[in-house]
Amino acid sequence: MSIQRHGTTRRYSDSVVHGGTVYLVEVPANLEADAAAQTANLLASVESLLAQAGSDKSRLLLATIYLADMADYDAMNAVWDAWIPEGHAPTRACLQAKLANPKYRVEMVLTAAVAQD
Amino acid sequence: MSIQRHGTTRRYSDSVVHGGTVYLVEVPANLEADAAAQTANLLASVESLLAQAGSDKSRLLLATIYLADMADYDAMNAVWDAWIPEGHAPTRACLQAKLANPKYRVEMVLTAAVAQD
Amino acid sequence: MSIQRHGTTRRYSDSVVHGGTVYLVEVPANLEADAAAQTANLLASVESLLAQAGSDKSRLLLATIYLADMADYDAMNAVWDAWIPEGHAPTRACLQAKLANPKYRVEMVLTAAVAQD
Repeated sequence: MSIQRHGTTRRYSDSVVHGGTVYLVEVPANLEADAAAQTANLLASVESLLAQAGSDKSRLLLATIYLADMADYDAMNAVWDAWIPEGHAPTRACLQAKLANPKYRVEMVLTAAVAQD
Repeated sequence: MSIQRHGTTRRYSDSVVHGGTVYLVEVPANLEADAAAQTANLLASVESLLAQAGSDKSRLLLATIYLADMADYDAMNAVWDAWIPEGHAPTRACLQAKLANPKYRVEMVLTAAVAQD
Repeated sequence: MSIQRHGTTRRYSDSVVHGGTVYLVEVPANLEADAAAQTANLLASVESLLAQAGSDKSRLLLATIYLADMADYDAMNAVWDAWIPEGHAPTRACLQAKLANPKYRVEMVLTAAVAQD
């Protein structure tokens, strides 16, 4: 089992694949947008990262969702619920936490199975 | 390596099994109870979810425990310590975080090995 | 796939190995030190735990870094960036959270591949 990294900087990788599993962390790029738009932006990036790693959104295993303000819970969920393929939701935790950039309203840590599985 | 999901809703699954590993997130059902009783309730549900996934509490790998109030640390730990089979504790982080339901005093994210391992 | 635990107490293990993957949680031992020194202390312990588990810091897959105060972000990162072997950074989330011991300024949850992979 080798390790494949994507989008590797000095500090982090966008995703890392090992043993049939891909690990990824994503934040939004549209920092002036509201929580719904940031979630949509983030999840679009997640789709690209999953594809790059040989996975897709029907293969998510575990999601940890951090919201800067739990008041955004419903707004985030509306986007999430529409995005997840029915019958394929990962197990999921959602928490409020102060994030590294005060403009981030949402951050997600995701584990998924790669497609050859 | 296929993916098995249990308790799947539009938003989340209770647990997901892949590659000999089960991922699960649990919250308490007894929302008016104190932290100790919520922890006991949650861990009883965890035992059911682990059994459903072909695992058990002697096979936990990683636990992340979120407390709504770190003042409940000792109360949660008393239940946790009695519940874990001696010599089989997972690696564990415990943090305070605001949870999705203000009545949750505890939430846990667990990774475990399935029993055929 | 068997399970190997290291540093197991009644409550937690220092690390757990399963299926070619090691899970570990670490906190600093120098509780009176600042965030940079606590990060350096913690990462030195991580190196020992990784070696004990048959892994090393070039094989990190996922890191979740909890800071007691996000004001320590740059101080932690300076140590982290110098510690990570170039080209081998894991995917990474960094959050502020209240930690179990008020003297902890940093705590890390790490997943890594074991070396036989």
